[in-house]
Amino acid sequence: MSAQPSLADDAAGTEAAMLDIGRRARAAARRLALASTAQKNAALTAMAQAIRTRSRAICEANAEDIAEARREGMTPAFIDRLALDPARVEAMAAGIEMVRDLADPVGKVMDAWDRPNGLRIERVRVPLGVIGVIYESRPNVTADAAALCLKSGNAAILRGGSDSFRSSRAIHQAISSGLDAAGLPSAAISLVPTRDRAAVGLMLQGLEGAIDVIIPRGGKSLVARVQDEARVPVFAHLDGNCHVYVHGAASLAMARDIVLNAKMRRTSVCGAAETLLVDEACAGTHLRPLVAALLDAGCEVRGDSLARIVDPRVKPASEEDWGTEFGDAIIAVKVVSGLGDAIAHVERYGSHHTDAIVTNDQAAADRFMAEVDSAIVLHNASTQFADGGEFGFGAEIGIATGRMHARGPVGVEQLTSFKYRVRGTGQTRP
Amino acid sequence: MSAQPSLADDAAGTEAAMLDIGRRARAAARRLALASTAQKNAALTAMAQAIRTRSRAICEANAEDIAEARREGMTPAFIDRLALDPARVEAMAAGIEMVRDLADPVGKVMDAWDRPNGLRIERVRVPLGVIGVIYESRPNVTADAAALCLKSGNAAILRGGSDSFRSSRAIHQAISSGLDAAGLPSAAISLVPTRDRAAVGLMLQGLEGAIDVIIPRGGKSLVARVQDEARVPVFAHLDGNCHVYVHGAASLAMARDIVLNAKMRRTSVCGAAETLLVDEACAGTHLRPLVAALLDAGCEVRGDSLARIVDPRVKPASEEDWGTEFGDAIIAVKVVSGLGDAIAHVERYGSHHTDAIVTNDQAAADRFMAEVDSAIVLHNASTQFADGGEFGFGAEIGIATGRMHARGPVGVEQLTSFKYRVRGTGQTRP
Repeated sequence: MSAQPSLADDAAGTEAAMLDIGRRARAAARRLALASTAQKNAALTAMAQAIRTRSRAICEANAEDIAEARREGMTPAFIDRLALDPARVEAMAAGIEMVRDLADPVGKVMDAWDRPNGLRIERVRVPLGVIGVIYESRPNVTADAAALCLKSGNAAILRGGSDSFRSSRAIHQAISSGLDAAGLPSAAISLVPTRDRAAVGLMLQGLEGAIDVIIPRGGKSLVARVQDEARVPVFAHLDGNCHVYVHGAASLAMARDIVLNAKMRRTSVCGAAETLLVDEACAGTHLRPLVAALLDAGCEVRGDSLARIVDPRVKPASEEDWGTEFGDAIIAVKVVSGLGDAIAHVERYGSHHTDAIVTNDQAAADRFMAEVDSAIVLHNASTQFADGGEFGFGAEIGIATGRMHARGPVGVEQLTSFKYRVRGTGQTRP
Repeated sequence: MSAQPSLADDAAGTEAAMLDIGRRARAAARRLALASTAQKNAALTAMAQAIRTRSRAICEANAEDIAEARREGMTPAFIDRLALDPARVEAMAAGIEMVRDLADPVGKVMDAWDRPNGLRIERVRVPLGVIGVIYESRPNVTADAAALCLKSGNAAILRGGSDSFRSSRAIHQAISSGLDAAGLPSAAISLVPTRDRAAVGLMLQGLEGAIDVIIPRGGKSLVARVQDEARVPVFAHLDGNCHVYVHGAASLAMARDIVLNAKMRRTSVCGAAETLLVDEACAGTHLRPLVAALLDAGCEVRGDSLARIVDPRVKPASEEDWGTEFGDAIIAVKVVSGLGDAIAHVERYGSHHTDAIVTNDQAAADRFMAEVDSAIVLHNASTQFADGGEFGFGAEIGIATGRMHARGPVGVEQLTSFKYRVRGTGQTRP
């Protein structure tokens, strides 16, 4: 039934098959790097169409995954992440078309300059090569990651969660048929055809140089394992422990809107605020209404002694709470003695992801944005804008907190490298 | 005598001391990241001055290193790399002033755009953090690396070769006094105060997160060890196996100038050509004079059967020669059947460093430059232009062939990361 090779069950069989996938992906990457925008777009169009055409088969495969997950007693939240229906399948197809319609980053001249000796130097975007994506139960990652990697001219090796194995395989069959239809090699987007967990370890070793970068998509334990074991570069963030600091010169109305949005719009996203810092200069007027607004919106508040004084519903915050990404309707609240104290708190407990200051004092904002060493720093805006779509990147495969290469939202441009093109007229070096 | 702490001789002592250096470098990096251009420049000026003032002490320390190297029977070439004299010390000081006079990359706005909701997003350069530099016998690397790291706002941990230990320590004392004079922490530029080789292994592990990137400066075995063992990102190239391809539509005069320069200007630099590919379309007219010019210039030529026919002085090339960086006056010469064959040869045997095509056919040049996947590709210019100074970067700490972050010459801009600054007026995310 499947176009995928089946794997022997032994470790040597898995390793041989994975190395073969790596070699074929590397060869496909060379072809993709030179594919025209039109050819890549044709493949993306055909992929989206194939996903629509195969919607029923994809949902049937998904039903088998869900039945197994139910037998294994998975939680309703887990089942919901795993579940597909015709509307979700259509959203996947539309997502591929959205990526198709982004500007092609490959070949774009990033900089160009002339040297006194007449040499013309250009820095031009090229694909990274082969991207390994390791994810968990959400089957739509198969389509999203495939589209972003292909648009940016990269080959991809996708390793989905065991729980969504049948769903991902059905989606991958549609992707392969789209590549075929556009005359691109099916090895451009490979799905690891086994649930054997050893495949992940092999990917983290780089498949003998075949993988250029690994992107984990999933929970903290997955990201931690990938960051710990990978011998190739990783684009990821382990924690999104984001802060909103309400400075002494903040408007209460603006602070309330931003804090509520940063915490409560969606509590599970990595850009959700986890700690509210209120400056003692405005705590007398701002602390009580901010805490009340959060509580009234259904948020649990864990506060320091001052926050507990202003509202009896506030629970005591532990030392651990300051460093925790709750991922839920819970926030830690602390009164700080000023801008320096706020910055020191963010540096000590934060995760260098996204942090915001609310203030009408431009100098205070400038200092916060200079000194807080996070991928994204905001002034008078919600931390929930930490998102490739909101940045205008069209789509993202994740957010990175490392300092190398990709930092912040990882969209198609961040999935590229560059090369220098130098044009001369016979120049030799003296 | 030395301002450096001495290290206990046991492994636990080395580890504790190295972790302490890492922690102090990390703290210094935060101060350096916020240091003004004027303050960094004042430190660089004071460093250069201190090197001049201490020239005699530096040369005396160097004499001790040289005496030891002689006792140990080191080669004259090794002694020359190690040796300092007043002119070389002055060149070090002048090099620091040259780096001082480069534009400060930190704080530069790389991109800025407005979103429909009124958010203003800026991408701004920030330092990488702490850079570990591992090098061999050339003591001037101590000054060069210190200057480039400081100019780009980074702290540095320098680990010089055992053979130049006393020289590097004397140079480092001058650097420390320059930092002091400018009010910057001396931990901003640390020199590992031990010859214990275990210190290198500890740096490659990242000193518990204190090192953001490692840059090896030295021979192939050093680079190979660093690339193999490092658990943090590495900016380096293992090989510089560079090619010049003389296309069928090349001018003979231009090809001869470029080939001679690419091979013979300096044979030991990483951008020196190691293989000459001549297209069979012009071999009848171009092969003999190109080979003769190389031989007449004192270059050993190892050729395929056609190259051996045109000149009896040509030795046979082995399979291994195509993949070898000779680093000497030796070149491998091969006749290829066309552009595709040339590109395939470069991809099979090259090191993705720097490769050049000589041709008057623009379409052929464009195809070569698109398909050859090297950090630098040149048209009608010598491969010896692979150099940060020649690119206009002012100075370089090396050339990288990895695809992540820094590719090609690594100058002060490549020693930076970036952050996103987002300015709003109270925006929340719908």
